[in-house]
Amino acid sequence: MARRGLLIILSSPSGAGKSTLAKSLREWDDTLQFSVSATTRTARQGEVDGKDYFFVNTDEFQAQVHQGEMLEHARVFGNYYGSPKGPVQKAIDDGRDVLFDIDWQGAQQISNSSLRDHVLSIFILPPSITELHRRLVNRGQDSDDVIEKRMQQSWDEISHWDGYNYVLINDNLSDTDARLKTIITAERLRASQQPDLMDHVRELQQQFEDR
Amino acid sequence: MARRGLLIILSSPSGAGKSTLAKSLREWDDTLQFSVSATTRTARQGEVDGKDYFFVNTDEFQAQVHQGEMLEHARVFGNYYGSPKGPVQKAIDDGRDVLFDIDWQGAQQISNSSLRDHVLSIFILPPSITELHRRLVNRGQDSDDVIEKRMQQSWDEISHWDGYNYVLINDNLSDTDARLKTIITAERLRASQQPDLMDHVRELQQQFEDR
Repeated sequence: MARRGLLIILSSPSGAGKSTLAKSLREWDDTLQFSVSATTRTARQGEVDGKDYFFVNTDEFQAQVHQGEMLEHARVFGNYYGSPKGPVQKAIDDGRDVLFDIDWQGAQQISNSSLRDHVLSIFILPPSITELHRRLVNRGQDSDDVIEKRMQQSWDEISHWDGYNYVLINDNLSDTDARLKTIITAERLRASQQPDLMDHVRELQQQFEDR
Repeated sequence: MARRGLLIILSSPSGAGKSTLAKSLREWDDTLQFSVSATTRTARQGEVDGKDYFFVNTDEFQAQVHQGEMLEHARVFGNYYGSPKGPVQKAIDDGRDVLFDIDWQGAQQISNSSLRDHVLSIFILPPSITELHRRLVNRGQDSDDVIEKRMQQSWDEISHWDGYNYVLINDNLSDTDARLKTIITAERLRASQQPDLMDHVRELQQQFEDR
């Protein structure tokens, strides 16, 4: 029996270190597939279509939702975001794990979907709000207004921390990185994640009977 | 809110390396409490009452079962074995994890008990039946008859591998040891195992409101 991949969901408020952690996970394990979200928002400088996001218009997005081709979707700051189902289904059917960098709304939808038995959800909490604010300001990308909007959004995200399987406080990036890898390594050792164990036990049975 | 400890159940056929692994876990984490079983069998040379087992007579054992003082119990080769509830309850109420070296019958009983939400069960499979037999013979403790009885018992144990949360094939002791520690470390990072996260989130909320 073939292994089915895990849907590894990573959520956190912006500024809690999630992107850095996701990048590190992909370097650690190159079999890990990243779920590229579709969005109706405009591409920022340097963002690549099909790599950072699939940039689509609102009609295309809504058509995909109606055809059941989005695993989850949500509207944030007037733009739609969603996870296309096709690439995820293919990866997990091939036994590869898929990493999702999505918010609590998406996490909740996937955790309630038909794939819920394969979900591993992890929430990253910031050590403090001061630190979170500092990181948003230090990015230097956004105006004060946008930073305040992001802070409100961050609090909304944080307030949903308890719907996740695992929660990590990111007070030290390399510790958090190590813990994330520990969690993923352990989850892959679950009996339900190792269907080939059945073959091993059948072999043991044969050996036992042949003694 | 205080953390409640985990009930970490380690099962395997005799000869699969379980005792060595359990010993290593206790050296790795001295907060880990070992559940000392009660038994009606006679103490072997070198076994210490209250450390290796609580040696009791059949009347005492059955009285404890009837008074609901055994978390699990079973009869194996004409002797009773059981896990006294008192020390386990005290340890987990104090937030300490308890390690159980018990068979599938005990694992099943604890996994169906009122403490089931705190159970972490791990099964250790041998790499081969030949290897298992070799290890039983090499102990030099037992007659051929006893070894054959243990082999039958081992197969009975192996056939219940799929009732466990995690399964490890012990083809290399130090790898298996590392994997066991990975599993325990990860399970302690579950949201449900970190009730003090609630305090951290309350602090974040305060900081957010005080900005």
